[in-house]
Amino acid sequence: MPRPLLLSPDRLFPSDPAQRDIARRLYGEVAGLPIVSPHGHTDPGWFAGNAPFGNAAELLLHPDHYVFRMLYSQGISLGALGIRNPAADPRESWRLFAQNYHLFRGTPSRMWMDWVFAEAFGFDVQFSAETSDLYYDRITEALSTDAFRPRALFDRFGIEVIATTESPLDTLEHHAAIRAANASGEWGGRVITAYRPDSVVDPEFEGFRDNLQRFSELSGEDAFSYAGYLAAHRNRRAFFAEMGATSTDHGHPTAATADLSDAEAEVLFARVTGDDVSAADAELFRAHMLTVMAGMSLDDGLVMQIHPGAFRNHNPWLFAHYGRDKGADIPMATDYVHALRPLLGRYGNEAALTIILFTLDETSYARELAPLAGHYPALKLGPAWWFHDSPEGMRRFRSQTTETAGFYNTVGFNDDTRAFLSIPARHDVARRIDCGFLAQLVAEHRMEEWEAAELAVDLSYNLAKAAYKL
Amino acid sequence: MPRPLLLSPDRLFPSDPAQRDIARRLYGEVAGLPIVSPHGHTDPGWFAGNAPFGNAAELLLHPDHYVFRMLYSQGISLGALGIRNPAADPRESWRLFAQNYHLFRGTPSRMWMDWVFAEAFGFDVQFSAETSDLYYDRITEALSTDAFRPRALFDRFGIEVIATTESPLDTLEHHAAIRAANASGEWGGRVITAYRPDSVVDPEFEGFRDNLQRFSELSGEDAFSYAGYLAAHRNRRAFFAEMGATSTDHGHPTAATADLSDAEAEVLFARVTGDDVSAADAELFRAHMLTVMAGMSLDDGLVMQIHPGAFRNHNPWLFAHYGRDKGADIPMATDYVHALRPLLGRYGNEAALTIILFTLDETSYARELAPLAGHYPALKLGPAWWFHDSPEGMRRFRSQTTETAGFYNTVGFNDDTRAFLSIPARHDVARRIDCGFLAQLVAEHRMEEWEAAELAVDLSYNLAKAAYKL
Amino acid sequence: MPRPLLLSPDRLFPSDPAQRDIARRLYGEVAGLPIVSPHGHTDPGWFAGNAPFGNAAELLLHPDHYVFRMLYSQGISLGALGIRNPAADPRESWRLFAQNYHLFRGTPSRMWMDWVFAEAFGFDVQFSAETSDLYYDRITEALSTDAFRPRALFDRFGIEVIATTESPLDTLEHHAAIRAANASGEWGGRVITAYRPDSVVDPEFEGFRDNLQRFSELSGEDAFSYAGYLAAHRNRRAFFAEMGATSTDHGHPTAATADLSDAEAEVLFARVTGDDVSAADAELFRAHMLTVMAGMSLDDGLVMQIHPGAFRNHNPWLFAHYGRDKGADIPMATDYVHALRPLLGRYGNEAALTIILFTLDETSYARELAPLAGHYPALKLGPAWWFHDSPEGMRRFRSQTTETAGFYNTVGFNDDTRAFLSIPARHDVARRIDCGFLAQLVAEHRMEEWEAAELAVDLSYNLAKAAYKL
Repeated sequence: MPRPLLLSPDRLFPSDPAQRDIARRLYGEVAGLPIVSPHGHTDPGWFAGNAPFGNAAELLLHPDHYVFRMLYSQGISLGALGIRNPAADPRESWRLFAQNYHLFRGTPSRMWMDWVFAEAFGFDVQFSAETSDLYYDRITEALSTDAFRPRALFDRFGIEVIATTESPLDTLEHHAAIRAANASGEWGGRVITAYRPDSVVDPEFEGFRDNLQRFSELSGEDAFSYAGYLAAHRNRRAFFAEMGATSTDHGHPTAATADLSDAEAEVLFARVTGDDVSAADAELFRAHMLTVMAGMSLDDGLVMQIHPGAFRNHNPWLFAHYGRDKGADIPMATDYVHALRPLLGRYGNEAALTIILFTLDETSYARELAPLAGHYPALKLGPAWWFHDSPEGMRRFRSQTTETAGFYNTVGFNDDTRAFLSIPARHDVARRIDCGFLAQLVAEHRMEEWEAAELAVDLSYNLAKAAYKL
Repeated sequence: MPRPLLLSPDRLFPSDPAQRDIARRLYGEVAGLPIVSPHGHTDPGWFAGNAPFGNAAELLLHPDHYVFRMLYSQGISLGALGIRNPAADPRESWRLFAQNYHLFRGTPSRMWMDWVFAEAFGFDVQFSAETSDLYYDRITEALSTDAFRPRALFDRFGIEVIATTESPLDTLEHHAAIRAANASGEWGGRVITAYRPDSVVDPEFEGFRDNLQRFSELSGEDAFSYAGYLAAHRNRRAFFAEMGATSTDHGHPTAATADLSDAEAEVLFARVTGDDVSAADAELFRAHMLTVMAGMSLDDGLVMQIHPGAFRNHNPWLFAHYGRDKGADIPMATDYVHALRPLLGRYGNEAALTIILFTLDETSYARELAPLAGHYPALKLGPAWWFHDSPEGMRRFRSQTTETAGFYNTVGFNDDTRAFLSIPARHDVARRIDCGFLAQLVAEHRMEEWEAAELAVDLSYNLAKAAYKL
Repeated sequence: MPRPLLLSPDRLFPSDPAQRDIARRLYGEVAGLPIVSPHGHTDPGWFAGNAPFGNAAELLLHPDHYVFRMLYSQGISLGALGIRNPAADPRESWRLFAQNYHLFRGTPSRMWMDWVFAEAFGFDVQFSAETSDLYYDRITEALSTDAFRPRALFDRFGIEVIATTESPLDTLEHHAAIRAANASGEWGGRVITAYRPDSVVDPEFEGFRDNLQRFSELSGEDAFSYAGYLAAHRNRRAFFAEMGATSTDHGHPTAATADLSDAEAEVLFARVTGDDVSAADAELFRAHMLTVMAGMSLDDGLVMQIHPGAFRNHNPWLFAHYGRDKGADIPMATDYVHALRPLLGRYGNEAALTIILFTLDETSYARELAPLAGHYPALKLGPAWWFHDSPEGMRRFRSQTTETAGFYNTVGFNDDTRAFLSIPARHDVARRIDCGFLAQLVAEHRMEEWEAAELAVDLSYNLAKAAYKL
């Protein structure tokens, strides 16, 4: 007999009755607030075309590297799961997932999935080997209905605004289509882009020079001269802003910044656009460009996000056979104090600038990030990110940053996901954890409950809207 | 209508009823103990002259970099707050503070301030925009009364002894005046100094060579020869000890120590007192001097404190416009295992020596500091410091050091503050958190309650007296 | 009057009633399970010879560096404790321990010791100065009885299997004697060895070249040629496997690995077996040999354990006077992301290989180790180790690794101890902490109780058996 699937209304609240009662009340104030998703990786084509999603494995297993990395870690081949393997039977891949669902006990993936199963698809029995086919069939069937098309889910999820992330080389035609649908009254969903220029900022990015060629074409500037390169950025940033962007995003291996003179930058630019780019030059150029981008943000008002600290593609065999984004990116120890000083020395005192900083290195929360954000007007802390976007990770974020940076130097939650169906679950986890954290402060008489109630709304909704200018 | 201001008698205790009941009983044993403040930065001139403090902003806002750094981080200019700006109206600066008091939710500053407002000044409504002028007027008026003069507050706060911190270039005339008042029976408060020689130990300190000149004059030694320099230290240490000092204090960028031969040291000394001191030489000289100072402590009995790990004046614009100590010092990752080995190799086995080590890098608590202090007889751990002198910071300190170093290789609490009125609040927070931590151990049957009661007194009072020889 | 000694049945469970009730039920399922001890440092001679242990100090004080390091840290000389001092009266050494038993408040040593006192020896009064002689006499007397001989305690403790750790230079005669006793039906206890080749892998190990000479003799290979050296390893690994070994163990200063070509390795081998080995060569050779050992594990099926990150013999005076393993090993910050990449790049995708990785640097749990183990099929995480084998240390391990690596990329508990009598206490602490952690997940509705019950058995028993192939 399959076990029942029940989502407790008290899930993720502290079990201490005093704290739990407060957490319930706080959560009651925010549970129904719209979702503001200011940073993520959903595909704008979903909302432009509104085509139905495919089968259960295609929607929930194949694109979710949180899920298949865990299965892979236990010796299950990616091919059998259908990753880069069209020959795999999706039902069989799904069964492998079902048989190994116990591996996810205690992980956020388990909580997100159970929410999707219970709330999005209405299951009332647990996912397991026994219920694998039941799940596969019912999900796949649902996906063929209008109620499960992207726009319908967007509306049903109560999403007020969602940002996707695109390269400057993207033509944003999906966003144009969505805006046309908005204008015609066909659909009201607000989907905006964000400017992620890694492919034309990182000399070590695959196809960097080809990318600059395309960058030139799209911008009408000569991106192979330093002046033209900067003009191309300004041009594309303006175009992204027209298409709704309120932010840029920068995914660098480290948090290094530099502030070169124009003459130095020009010489460096010549080197990194030539043959045989050294690792040091590539790092210095990325570092310099963060400061340049901050300056452009001060001019055009785009909020700047920095996501540093991942060792990308750590597994060479996997990269060779399966490519990027297959769960083999590993966080590294990351210095911020020295790394950010050139940028902050130049622009950190600008209250009109907003730089939102993320980390994969939790040791920096209390030691570096909270002290930096608790001082520099331009700097705010992004929420617990990626491996740390989890109940315990979020608790550590709050308990290690609040005392020095307060709540108001943070920017609310963002889901940073391509797993569209999990977005409400992720925001719900964040709201529950924040309410639980606030409840502890109230129960320990470190804050009044009315203050916590104000903060619960700020953390769930207001701070993200304000920080991202939404 | 203003909200009521109430300090719960259970504040900061765990909300679990079993733990809270034990914490209440433990706290009952220590709440009334005198305050021993073995390290801090109050101004001895206050107690020597006993002049009234100024207005609310002068006393509570202008000197407190915990407070104005948070306001600055949200875009409020330091000038408007009256920092280095005599033209600012203190009442208006105070209003800015009041309007933004919500920024401090969840921070220790909020708890300390509320204690000062409620306990020191008797407010029963919360501080807010609405009550800003009420607060300003009542505080400013109170400060003009005898009951709020420094000595009266010292007595009212139950301070048994307080240490200030002075440079060897200080003539200690305030301490002499206090000791004269003690001797004459005019006032019984015990105020002692501590020897903080950074200005004559750090070749990168502003005016280093001028400082050595003054050092020579005060000591009657030639501080420009290495032998004379060491003799000058011995001379001033002896003078400080006469004026009550039981400790020295060393604030270095890193924890590096070195143990040079006399010949090597002499050559290095010549270099660092010459022109164009290299950063490496400056670091090596500071490192060597920590070992020299430990040796002198073994001779003269002064307890040695080391406070490493801050990147001072991280914000160059702020430093240029507002100077030091404006909230722009940022902690750095700090190695202790390799850094301290020269000093510990030389003196670590001396049970007669006490070195009290602090950190701004919490990652070292369990990994490095507790193992070092749990082994070397000379080494003890100072309490959670600066950014970590907070409820969560203190909990992390105890939970990460106790299992390896025990409680008896720690030295009780010190407030390390120049915010005189917050001293009782800070000690109270530490006592409450320690009692809560002990209560958890008792409630989880990891310790008997009678043991916890002994420890509560040790942590609140006995350990500081013993470690600092007070 | 001595205080009563009582071990609460609820010790180490969370005090929140909801969590405690669940923890009790989970613990009820695992409290009586046999002990699987897959890694440790007990002396196989005990079980081969079955001679009685000596007096209380010899058994419980002299070999336990957790205990005497704490006493030493408070200024008690090792000589007075009887360490390397046969002239010391063991009763007097024991009294020093008793008088200072309060130093252990809040430490795991205190919990382990109290278990030994209450459960192994039946004391019902606390250990203290007052009861020192009572303890000394009763323990020493008990040790002379058959019930306290090694094999009887092994049986009484419910040990299903225990692994010791030996060098390739060990002849394993004790293991042979035990296997003979097993075969003859004289005793049924299962005691196996593990292959720990540091003395012939680390060019900086004392007597490295003498060790290679002995290695040659024992293996019948020429361990001074690279090919012969590898053959010698294969030979001794096979012999260890015959004597029951299912694992190897590698205690390196860092986690560095390398993957040299045969030609490069041969040249390096010539250098590190010659005069004047450089530190860099020694490190590179150790690094390369980890990859070589992983390859041999893939061939012969031995599970590979890596224990990196200790600065051995940090205290030079103590090392000169008292030698190794005297509590002066200190953990260091340890990088895994870059360090392990050569090994993982070569063998990390092999599901047939098991590498169990430990750390002394907790900052790597969430940042590096959980992401690595949550991806690479070959990699599993060892339990909280050494300074972190403690209630708070274990809680941090679970709360920082589970969300990314899950439970099934961990391998249950191992005690890693030479303190034989504490083994049941250590496993009991681990079971209680794991049950408490699971109870929190259940009480916060992050897991069902039936899942937690399955996991409790897995963490206490099944995972260790499976991971170590026992």
